[in-house]
Amino acid sequence: MGQQLITITFQPSGKKIQVENGESLRNVAGSSGIDLTMSCGGKGTCGKCKVLFQSGIPAITPDDKNHLSETELQQGYRLACRAILNDDAVICLQDESNIQAAKILTKGTARKVDINPVITKKKAVIQPPTVEDLRSDLTRVYNAFNIEQNDEKPDIHLLRTISSAIRESEFNVTGVFSDGSLISVEPGDTESERYGVAFDIGTTTIAGYLIDLTTGNQLSVSSSMNPQAKIGDDVISRISFVMQESDGLETLRSSVVEEMNNIIDSLLAAANVNRDNVYEASVVGNTCMTHLFMGIDPRHLAMSPYVPVVSQSLNIKASDIGLCINDYANVYVLPCIAGYVGADTVGVMLASDMYESDKMTLAVDIGTNGEIVLGSKEKLIACSTAAGPAFEGAHIKYGMRAAPGAIDAVWMDDNKLKFSTVDEKPPVGICGSGLLDIIIFMLNAGIIEDSGRIVDAEEIPETFSHFRKYIIDGERGNDFILIPVEQTAIDGPIVITQKDVREIQLAKSAIAAGILTLMDKLSITTEQLDSIILAGAFGNYVRKESAIEAGMLPNVPLSKVHSAGNAAGEGAKLALISSLIRRDVADIASHVDYVELTTDMKFQERFADALIFEKIN
Amino acid sequence: MGQQLITITFQPSGKKIQVENGESLRNVAGSSGIDLTMSCGGKGTCGKCKVLFQSGIPAITPDDKNHLSETELQQGYRLACRAILNDDAVICLQDESNIQAAKILTKGTARKVDINPVITKKKAVIQPPTVEDLRSDLTRVYNAFNIEQNDEKPDIHLLRTISSAIRESEFNVTGVFSDGSLISVEPGDTESERYGVAFDIGTTTIAGYLIDLTTGNQLSVSSSMNPQAKIGDDVISRISFVMQESDGLETLRSSVVEEMNNIIDSLLAAANVNRDNVYEASVVGNTCMTHLFMGIDPRHLAMSPYVPVVSQSLNIKASDIGLCINDYANVYVLPCIAGYVGADTVGVMLASDMYESDKMTLAVDIGTNGEIVLGSKEKLIACSTAAGPAFEGAHIKYGMRAAPGAIDAVWMDDNKLKFSTVDEKPPVGICGSGLLDIIIFMLNAGIIEDSGRIVDAEEIPETFSHFRKYIIDGERGNDFILIPVEQTAIDGPIVITQKDVREIQLAKSAIAAGILTLMDKLSITTEQLDSIILAGAFGNYVRKESAIEAGMLPNVPLSKVHSAGNAAGEGAKLALISSLIRRDVADIASHVDYVELTTDMKFQERFADALIFEKIN
Repeated sequence: MGQQLITITFQPSGKKIQVENGESLRNVAGSSGIDLTMSCGGKGTCGKCKVLFQSGIPAITPDDKNHLSETELQQGYRLACRAILNDDAVICLQDESNIQAAKILTKGTARKVDINPVITKKKAVIQPPTVEDLRSDLTRVYNAFNIEQNDEKPDIHLLRTISSAIRESEFNVTGVFSDGSLISVEPGDTESERYGVAFDIGTTTIAGYLIDLTTGNQLSVSSSMNPQAKIGDDVISRISFVMQESDGLETLRSSVVEEMNNIIDSLLAAANVNRDNVYEASVVGNTCMTHLFMGIDPRHLAMSPYVPVVSQSLNIKASDIGLCINDYANVYVLPCIAGYVGADTVGVMLASDMYESDKMTLAVDIGTNGEIVLGSKEKLIACSTAAGPAFEGAHIKYGMRAAPGAIDAVWMDDNKLKFSTVDEKPPVGICGSGLLDIIIFMLNAGIIEDSGRIVDAEEIPETFSHFRKYIIDGERGNDFILIPVEQTAIDGPIVITQKDVREIQLAKSAIAAGILTLMDKLSITTEQLDSIILAGAFGNYVRKESAIEAGMLPNVPLSKVHSAGNAAGEGAKLALISSLIRRDVADIASHVDYVELTTDMKFQERFADALIFEKIN
Repeated sequence: MGQQLITITFQPSGKKIQVENGESLRNVAGSSGIDLTMSCGGKGTCGKCKVLFQSGIPAITPDDKNHLSETELQQGYRLACRAILNDDAVICLQDESNIQAAKILTKGTARKVDINPVITKKKAVIQPPTVEDLRSDLTRVYNAFNIEQNDEKPDIHLLRTISSAIRESEFNVTGVFSDGSLISVEPGDTESERYGVAFDIGTTTIAGYLIDLTTGNQLSVSSSMNPQAKIGDDVISRISFVMQESDGLETLRSSVVEEMNNIIDSLLAAANVNRDNVYEASVVGNTCMTHLFMGIDPRHLAMSPYVPVVSQSLNIKASDIGLCINDYANVYVLPCIAGYVGADTVGVMLASDMYESDKMTLAVDIGTNGEIVLGSKEKLIACSTAAGPAFEGAHIKYGMRAAPGAIDAVWMDDNKLKFSTVDEKPPVGICGSGLLDIIIFMLNAGIIEDSGRIVDAEEIPETFSHFRKYIIDGERGNDFILIPVEQTAIDGPIVITQKDVREIQLAKSAIAAGILTLMDKLSITTEQLDSIILAGAFGNYVRKESAIEAGMLPNVPLSKVHSAGNAAGEGAKLALISSLIRRDVADIASHVDYVELTTDMKFQERFADALIFEKIN
């Protein structure tokens, strides 16, 4: 008997396709040109590809259970990447944007946020001037909108356009308000056209999101490399550039703004939105990135005591910053907590509801620096620790970015080494998410001791004696051939060196010691932790089991650990769609206590202790 | 006996000069390089050259009595242009600025204004950051100045400079505040360096004044032609240019801003003041000029019902406008009353105290348009009337600007015509201030009837029969040879044509009818007028007697008529040095009732009636 064909209907487009029974939705979608958000590459770890089955609901998988609430499962929500199609099905495929927005707004464990943006619109009919009514154009507009004239400080752009705007459509206009102040007058009825862009400026990557401020929906997303990376991988090298080059600051500022403008172009084109209808931008990033974005010299971030020039939230005119959106638009830059706990971390706090929750939450955002926040609505404390770039694949002999062929996961099966690679291409290197897996594998196989030392071949236990031949002499002791040359797509084997292990040890130890320091400050035990939120690319992709087993995270039940994806960016979006959130922001930033680790003696001790690969109990 | 030499000592410089007894101070000052403000050219009419004699006080002249109060005369104040030196004298020669400022601030009949500018400065010592004190630079500055952080919207320029500013002089700084908001932080103690510029943008001339905001003193003054005049003499021709040329508005905007920047350069150079210490500009001008300055399309000022785009006062960043002063500086544009009663008229009202006085005051600012304001603190009404450019010498056959050789005054002496010219050069034409004099002369000599008709030669009375030969045939009736060819410095006689007389008639009649309409609205008789203030160049230079005799102004005692000089500019200066005045401004602008003459039937009648040359009683 040949394969049975089934019919899958995608809503709301109504598109129908015939597929073989037993096919995975992931493959079907891919070959039908339907773009699903699978940040994890379809591994069931990110939870972003949730779709609603209206009929032909597939069986619930363990990953469905991890990412979806009971209610969602009953309603027919499933992860697209895990769904196996065994029957004719109707799939309500919200576009990527809707899925994302739904996650922000309604996802069970996360917060519910009313859409209440700072930017509002209102229609009015303006009285035309007559010989009996000689009010100025501006005054008659203010009167029509019941605006108290004396409270307003009209912008020069508004003054320059208001006269033609009110006459262009016979005195029927739409007013655009920012926080209640009239910023623009548009001819006709434009009430439904109201957009904003949210940005997360990472040291490595810039992500932009176009948001419909009426619905809260994300209409498009675009990201690209931070062009400053050409000048230096990390924050310190960029600050050095600012200090050494006379036009260094301007070079870095203009390059990031230019790239953000490119992203805006892509966002607008993808959603077919008019630039003039984008009335606000919100921006998060680490403290150095937001300083550079604003053209503020960040040099004191590199000198003790590492204070930022500005920490509060800011409202700056887009035209002063150079962002190409509406001329009147405001750029809202979220506040930072300290020189090394930036607006991105405030974004993470916003995206979770940790600052207004009873639950004791630990949020860890791991990049070159690890920003850690601990607490509940009672109290929040934060610190930053230099994790180093190991988890981004840097300083690791065969480290690389998550490009095709990068080993992204490693596990043991039947005492043998198993691995997966990005796009299932033959292995060419190791990306960050695979590193802790490799450590756990090596620990379990007796290839390294819990001190991190790679053992001599003969020390490997008998059960794993087949690995003995892969121990080779290295620069600083033994190295271990992870993938022999005959299995790689490069001109040699993929090796884990003793130095690599030390790098990983230092990185995980810094994170762990930071976490333990904060837990100590709040007198919190591992048992008392209700939730751990992992943010950032590494947090999103790392296997939680490995992170716990390696002793980077406290040893809590896996169900308490959640990947938040780009939580910083989510925070920026929330600030765009909710003025209430924006009030929370000011509160958060001024009430989080910053803990400086470099001067904390106990941190140094804990750091040394945490170098051992063992669970934190 | 030869001339006796006397010694004149100028204070505060201490400079001594020897001059001949009986010499005029005007000549002495000129030849000694001492610059006195004599807007009237030393004719005793402007009252601007007041100096204080500490000894050797000269006799009181009639002009002294006209311009100085009893107290001032007793104290030893005299007009420099009228003073004859008959004894050794010590003259306290405040610099030009002081004289002007004193006039604004303390002149008997005018107002007393406390110096209380919107721009203030305050010193502070900032706490340097330590590992225990990680506040951002901005926060520690706000804290040092006791500023409530949440109320502030720091400007991008402040953010970009604050960090280096506080470190440049070891955390001793001076804060610059605009209306209480921190706009700039400067290293060290700069409290004494606090300046502003006031501008009066006239259709023909732009005048700028550099003011020390600490003392209220005027440090320098500079004026130049409005470069827009190349495009069109009057407001309407400039509006036409805006409507006809695609970049017309930008051409006009940038040309005036560029010229204002030239004026700023001159002002700064003359007073040796640093551009960065100029923290504010205030601007007056007619409604079209302020619109063009801000780049706001003024086209609706040329179409009924002639409404402006904006009438309220505005605060715009200097950098948004393009004025080259401190980057953080604010430009304060005074409000207008209507399309043809501009911020310059508000300036005139400020310079007088008419809006807070019990006295019934009539203020008349005569240029191409005549703006007229009548009232007291109880009520103020205003109108504008198209006087036409006659009083500026345009449309008059031999009309010219007040350049050397222009006839600026005419009178009868022993039944003969006498005249004076600018710089006492041989006559080449007639400037505005001489025109009404000429009319009065011709009336008195029976050369014109009160209807304005130039009579036939034989109609001239016997007493003045020597003028009969100067009646000649003209285009529209008879013309009159004012100066025969042998006395002129041009290739022909200087003639007053019948058409010239009609132009002057139309101009004076428009002004008179405007005044009478306002007086009627407030039910005011000529007797009830307590004061008439003449503003603008014409108002400053016209002989009051001629203006009353010709029936342009109500027939009040001459002592009630005051030349206010460039009162519009004085108003701009007052707004710069007093935040209280600025509150008055908003009040004035919103409480003056505008009277539209074009639709007022009675105005038309009054206009026809006022064509007759006869006194208004």
